[in-house]
Amino acid sequence: MSSPKVLFGFHALGVRLKTAPQSIIEIYYESTRRDARMRSFIDRANEAGVRLVESDGLRLSKLAGSHGHQGVAARVKEIAQVHSLDELLENLEAANAGVPAAERVNPLILVLDGVTDPHNLGACLRVADGAGVHCVIAPKDHAAGINATVAKVASGAAETVPYFMVTNLARTLNELKERNIWVIGTSDAATQTLYQADLKGPVALVLGAEGDGMRQLTTKTCDQLVSIPMRGAVESLNVSVASGVCLYEAVRQRSL
Amino acid sequence: MSSPKVLFGFHALGVRLKTAPQSIIEIYYESTRRDARMRSFIDRANEAGVRLVESDGLRLSKLAGSHGHQGVAARVKEIAQVHSLDELLENLEAANAGVPAAERVNPLILVLDGVTDPHNLGACLRVADGAGVHCVIAPKDHAAGINATVAKVASGAAETVPYFMVTNLARTLNELKERNIWVIGTSDAATQTLYQADLKGPVALVLGAEGDGMRQLTTKTCDQLVSIPMRGAVESLNVSVASGVCLYEAVRQRSL
Repeated sequence: MSSPKVLFGFHALGVRLKTAPQSIIEIYYESTRRDARMRSFIDRANEAGVRLVESDGLRLSKLAGSHGHQGVAARVKEIAQVHSLDELLENLEAANAGVPAAERVNPLILVLDGVTDPHNLGACLRVADGAGVHCVIAPKDHAAGINATVAKVASGAAETVPYFMVTNLARTLNELKERNIWVIGTSDAATQTLYQADLKGPVALVLGAEGDGMRQLTTKTCDQLVSIPMRGAVESLNVSVASGVCLYEAVRQRSL
Repeated sequence: MSSPKVLFGFHALGVRLKTAPQSIIEIYYESTRRDARMRSFIDRANEAGVRLVESDGLRLSKLAGSHGHQGVAARVKEIAQVHSLDELLENLEAANAGVPAAERVNPLILVLDGVTDPHNLGACLRVADGAGVHCVIAPKDHAAGINATVAKVASGAAETVPYFMVTNLARTLNELKERNIWVIGTSDAATQTLYQADLKGPVALVLGAEGDGMRQLTTKTCDQLVSIPMRGAVESLNVSVASGVCLYEAVRQRSL
């Protein structure tokens, strides 16, 4: 996972303050803003011992490369992350070794095949974090990279959810299958619905690009295809909403 | 529900073509676009007997008031909709009268308390349509109206989902309760999760604005409060994603 050198927005900075305050070099804030949200943010930054620098809207926009900074931006150091998907999966397997089946933490993985819009990627990372996924996987040549816009929309999740861009998605899906992770793709053409799938075990959920869906080879590589019921006139859901519906069905099943 | 006089984008126009082609005055399309999506769209418009006018990107952007037209825009007549929430609820009650409980179509309503961003409203309408809700309700002074951006993001759902802006939301929620519709609000502070709620009966699901949540009076008016489990570091989901998670839990329960 690559991390931006500048973070902005209350959500993204709040998560960094909570999870890795020592990685924040300094926080710039709009000193004319004195509302409750800003005051509470400043308090938290002070408690965490982070350096605060008074600034103004113009400088913040320049630093953030966006007007959506909400009055706060920070220069941050990259956080050490797991280096590879293999390492992450091996860590999970090691943590589960010798643990009774009922107590294992089964992998929950989101695979995005063709999500190239930074807003959609950010929104997918946000809901992936919310549902507690272990990582998000995307094919290098059909994906968006992490940039400041993705990080802002992700509301901090670009900091917490490992995001792996892989060279050959079908090969990676086959590697997941070799590790006994069940690969479930979503498709309008599926005969089963999401609610007929068992999501309690180790699972990777694959969502395609809006409009086009998953690529053909990705579809063929899945163990199972499921559809999200569409009860109205629109043909599909936004990919981040569809991710939420699928991932939270896994959350529900796992909480039973 | 107010309807825009201009619609644009393949999704929004596709739904209008499907549900009310006679309401389309004329469709303008970018004549230099000859890809499969455009060709199939033109075929469907021709089959529906709608007047097609060759145009170019510049004129379409001007007509749509946006660059996001994807090469298609249309001038349309307003569609006759139910005129009031009362009328809609009475129609539903009349349709259920004398029908055995197991076969009734129980109202499913989405209430948005404070969603003022057009993109979020459009995304909420899209997933509301997907889940088959009967209507979306919002308070007049804390809501976005339907405009061309909302309609575009809604991918056609602004055409199909009745959207009522009400003067006094708490009063409207009380009216729903008088009609035996169970009003469930979402709140981080709730002690029950979404998955402990019974969504099979007549239900209105209330979501608040991002960050602030529901207003205090709205929260107090709800019959029940539930939370969406947050398994990671981010504090909340985007309101359209949260709407999807809640509404599709109702879809799931009702399909059992």
